[in-house]
Amino acid sequence: MTILLYDLVGRDSTRPFSPHCWKVAMALAHKGLDISTVPTRFLEVPAVEGGVSKTVPVIRDGETVLADSFAIALYLDEAYPDRPTLFGGEGGEAMARFIERWSQVTIHPYVTTAAIMDLHAMQDAENAVYFRQSREQRLGKRLEEVTAAREAGLDTFRASLEPLRSMLFYQPFIGGAAPLFGDYIVFGALQWARIASPYQLLNDGDVVAQWFARCLDLHGGLGRKVAAAA
Amino acid sequence: MTILLYDLVGRDSTRPFSPHCWKVAMALAHKGLDISTVPTRFLEVPAVEGGVSKTVPVIRDGETVLADSFAIALYLDEAYPDRPTLFGGEGGEAMARFIERWSQVTIHPYVTTAAIMDLHAMQDAENAVYFRQSREQRLGKRLEEVTAAREAGLDTFRASLEPLRSMLFYQPFIGGAAPLFGDYIVFGALQWARIASPYQLLNDGDVVAQWFARCLDLHGGLGRKVAAAA
Repeated sequence: MTILLYDLVGRDSTRPFSPHCWKVAMALAHKGLDISTVPTRFLEVPAVEGGVSKTVPVIRDGETVLADSFAIALYLDEAYPDRPTLFGGEGGEAMARFIERWSQVTIHPYVTTAAIMDLHAMQDAENAVYFRQSREQRLGKRLEEVTAAREAGLDTFRASLEPLRSMLFYQPFIGGAAPLFGDYIVFGALQWARIASPYQLLNDGDVVAQWFARCLDLHGGLGRKVAAAA
Repeated sequence: MTILLYDLVGRDSTRPFSPHCWKVAMALAHKGLDISTVPTRFLEVPAVEGGVSKTVPVIRDGETVLADSFAIALYLDEAYPDRPTLFGGEGGEAMARFIERWSQVTIHPYVTTAAIMDLHAMQDAENAVYFRQSREQRLGKRLEEVTAAREAGLDTFRASLEPLRSMLFYQPFIGGAAPLFGDYIVFGALQWARIASPYQLLNDGDVVAQWFARCLDLHGGLGRKVAAAA
């Protein structure tokens, strides 16, 4: 059966950009499940599946409707135990939560700083108004002020990736010899930046950039099917 | 059979303080293995088990001699598969490496800053000379200069624990509902500080402090058998 993924897009419905939707797209590919995506704009989210969630991703798998990328990944491993695992056991499930919180508090704020004007520019007129209003309320400043910190924050951001960089000295993926959902969590954050903004977050020689390139190659180059922002 | 743990101490042989030795002490208790510790001072490390390692912990388990806390934990799970797991599967093994690198690059440098003069004061005369010389060479400054950054760095250090703090909103341990080696990794770093220095790293109300207290309670209060520095 085909799984429906409600996937966040802007004006161009072929450029899904949400970090959390990318986590799920990669997770579904990892499990080898057939999917059909439903391009969804910000203002359409409240109507998804009868208003089941304030955010996407949302999936429908037969009668099961589920929101939240981490909950979806847990569901997929439970519902499809015979397909490749996303967590590699209970310890992996628990520690993927640490990875998620690390990515959320370390990477997401800087990607927001770096890409927020580009994300705004990707929306159609109506959604751009919503995006500006909701983000300016959440962040307590104008989008233009948020992104003003981009240059000054770059070195600190790159330094903040040191745990991942250091780990890559030991193994090629967060999941070890092969990727697990932990990889897709961090991949999602950097893919969000890659699709939204031409701003270069990583030095080419950085092992983190090399790991990200390996992730882009996974599952038939799924991540590369959307070109980097130019 | 009793496992020997070569455990780093200073002048007082009842106050082992090494973060990496504490990781292993907790791991051995987690596996329910009998141990006998060999109090070892810095200058005695090169002679441990015929010079097998430049650092402790080192364990001897029958004919097996092993150094490096992470390698020891992996060995214990492989050698004693019927006892409680330290990693919770392959995903847990892989992601414990991320936890280790995170702890090493986030927590260890600040504990060094905060506690280095206290660590120096714990050594006997001969080992104090070694400690000062080796650390000043590694850090490129006098111990007194290292610790001068303590007050100024405290807020940043506390903020850097945010991934762990945020994770504790979801689950009581890094290992999930119960502790795994990932918990002992971070515990080791904070236990090192607790035993060496009275300097207060964490606010009492911090959920990270509450998690640390839970870790101190584990395995019959093993971590509390050495009193906090006063």
